[in-house]
Amino acid sequence: MITGNQNTDYARGLEGVVAAETRIGFVDGINGRLVYRGYNIEELAESSTFEEVSYLLLYGTLPTKAEFEKFTARLNADNRIDDHLFKALQECTKASHPMSALRTGVSYLGSMDKDSNKYDLPSQEAMGLRLMGKFPSLVAAINRSLQGKPMVRSNEPNYTVRFLEESFGKKPTEFETKVFRTALILHADHGMNASTFASMVTISTLSDMYSAITSAIASLKGPLHGGANEQALANLERIGSPKNADNIISEMLEKKEKIMGFGHRVYKVYDPRAKILKEYAKKLAEETGHSELFETAEEVERVMINKLGTKGIFPNVDFYSGIVYKSLGFDPRLFTPIFALSRISGWFARSFEYLHDNRLFRPRSMYKGEVGPLKYVPLQDRK
Amino acid sequence: MITGNQNTDYARGLEGVVAAETRIGFVDGINGRLVYRGYNIEELAESSTFEEVSYLLLYGTLPTKAEFEKFTARLNADNRIDDHLFKALQECTKASHPMSALRTGVSYLGSMDKDSNKYDLPSQEAMGLRLMGKFPSLVAAINRSLQGKPMVRSNEPNYTVRFLEESFGKKPTEFETKVFRTALILHADHGMNASTFASMVTISTLSDMYSAITSAIASLKGPLHGGANEQALANLERIGSPKNADNIISEMLEKKEKIMGFGHRVYKVYDPRAKILKEYAKKLAEETGHSELFETAEEVERVMINKLGTKGIFPNVDFYSGIVYKSLGFDPRLFTPIFALSRISGWFARSFEYLHDNRLFRPRSMYKGEVGPLKYVPLQDRK
Repeated sequence: MITGNQNTDYARGLEGVVAAETRIGFVDGINGRLVYRGYNIEELAESSTFEEVSYLLLYGTLPTKAEFEKFTARLNADNRIDDHLFKALQECTKASHPMSALRTGVSYLGSMDKDSNKYDLPSQEAMGLRLMGKFPSLVAAINRSLQGKPMVRSNEPNYTVRFLEESFGKKPTEFETKVFRTALILHADHGMNASTFASMVTISTLSDMYSAITSAIASLKGPLHGGANEQALANLERIGSPKNADNIISEMLEKKEKIMGFGHRVYKVYDPRAKILKEYAKKLAEETGHSELFETAEEVERVMINKLGTKGIFPNVDFYSGIVYKSLGFDPRLFTPIFALSRISGWFARSFEYLHDNRLFRPRSMYKGEVGPLKYVPLQDRK
Repeated sequence: MITGNQNTDYARGLEGVVAAETRIGFVDGINGRLVYRGYNIEELAESSTFEEVSYLLLYGTLPTKAEFEKFTARLNADNRIDDHLFKALQECTKASHPMSALRTGVSYLGSMDKDSNKYDLPSQEAMGLRLMGKFPSLVAAINRSLQGKPMVRSNEPNYTVRFLEESFGKKPTEFETKVFRTALILHADHGMNASTFASMVTISTLSDMYSAITSAIASLKGPLHGGANEQALANLERIGSPKNADNIISEMLEKKEKIMGFGHRVYKVYDPRAKILKEYAKKLAEETGHSELFETAEEVERVMINKLGTKGIFPNVDFYSGIVYKSLGFDPRLFTPIFALSRISGWFARSFEYLHDNRLFRPRSMYKGEVGPLKYVPLQDRK
């Protein structure tokens, strides 16, 4: 309870404060390990699919064949978005950033779900699955809106393939599918980051899964959370060529400018996700005529590690994901919605996990203002 | 940083943990005082207007005449919602709870604001003012949708009057305006509650003010936060008459059922907001033919205080606000959107205050799961 002026110290931004327990995943920054339910990210990125990883995050084990079939059938039972929503997305993307369109789209889907006022666990699970099933089409529709093109509808059940097919209106190659699927797996969960925490705060009032994921997207939209790969790519394109890397980076560091795509709050060694994506980015860039972009990135990495590697500053996942998405043909404004296309797994899994032993999030604020009681002075007498 | 199994204790729901400083308001639960910027709530409820109180929460002092005029001019510069949005709200209210429609409406307004990707303080302030200016029309339009009636457009600049006029298609009486204005003032801010905290978590990523308020609404939708007055009224209507109060309440208490509208996490004495609303509820109920409802409430209060008053259980604001809104003619499904119509002041003021000394909210989760590394087994080999 707050009873006036206090001088106690507190952890700003709740830094270091434990807010929840989880069995879903952890980031071991010292050893450069990212773990989902006990599996190293390298193992899953190499062999698994995005649907399997989502199942793993949500239910705790890799699915049997029967479980997998049931899960994907539920995801695909009602995976279409309607023309009405597509029109609204077109309007929104004309006016503002596609993350606003995505936030509105998710909220709208929640408004149209007749079960969205049910709060029991099976209903919450069903809502999350329905939303996730529609997500590839929703993000692809935003991509089409950005391009000023009509919506594409695919009958493809695979999450990755459906998204790529509906984004570009043609079947992706096997290699494109593999690269993009890997990127989705790598971004599915990453500790209790700000958007994940936002989804948990919302679900803790027993609100619905659409509301939780709307809050997550509203939070991912902020430049302190999402958007780093968009900025990292813009910086690489500004540098333009490997030969400019040393000069421009040195100049930026002298001016104390932040080099996007480097350093991480948790990883003090090479980000395991960046290591995986780098290999794919190289091959993909070669195949799609973006070799100079990749070579510029490699040179920027070399310069940065030379200068700051001893301080634990290495490329993070955002440094290479931008090159991957650009090489696949995506508009950089779609990079953060693509992040959401993957992270919905983590948001859903962690909100759903939290509901099993729910407690309303309600920290305190420390009052440092006027205690009064002040006397009200009528408007005409105020100076 | 999280490095595997830990056994440390932590505060579930962040209970008691300080997450931020504020100069906006505080709840003194021991003495039954609610303070906005040093003013007791009774003083403001008696003499102020909702616009003045919003200015006070946002900027720290009551406005001079010139400041007040500038503030209300900014609120009303672009206060209309368009037919396109009204159609979407009609669709949403047909399918689900009006809080989903409100969440979608706010997100949509954000998508249509060309400045919603600017993160500087003046842009955030301008977005908050634009959204707040549209809020009476937005909530009134949801009310019209619920009633299956067309939208009403008023040129009235006053927040309270405009909302009532656009909700019912006729000018409110002076007394109706006074009562509703008071209810808005009483609900404008109440410590760092769950929806307010959600808005702060979202804004802390430097996301935009629409995103912050979308998260707040997504969180207020949950029955552990919003909706208590809707349930309290339903319970009173079920009791039906003062003579049934003792029996039904005793029976409910025996079955350990929660009596909505009683008790408060912070107030251990009579909720100062309930005290104010009770007087208005009495007079309004008499005037509008809801006397038996009010008398039932009074009897329920008497029974409850007899049984539980010594334990610090008293009526809270939700107990009497439902009677006020019902007497004014509102559908109970609109009660939580009305809460938002008022609380937007607190959400906006506290998110805006937080931005002045921003720090990303990023607490830790404690990993209690499998550490592995587990070996990936291909789908066909799983049992």
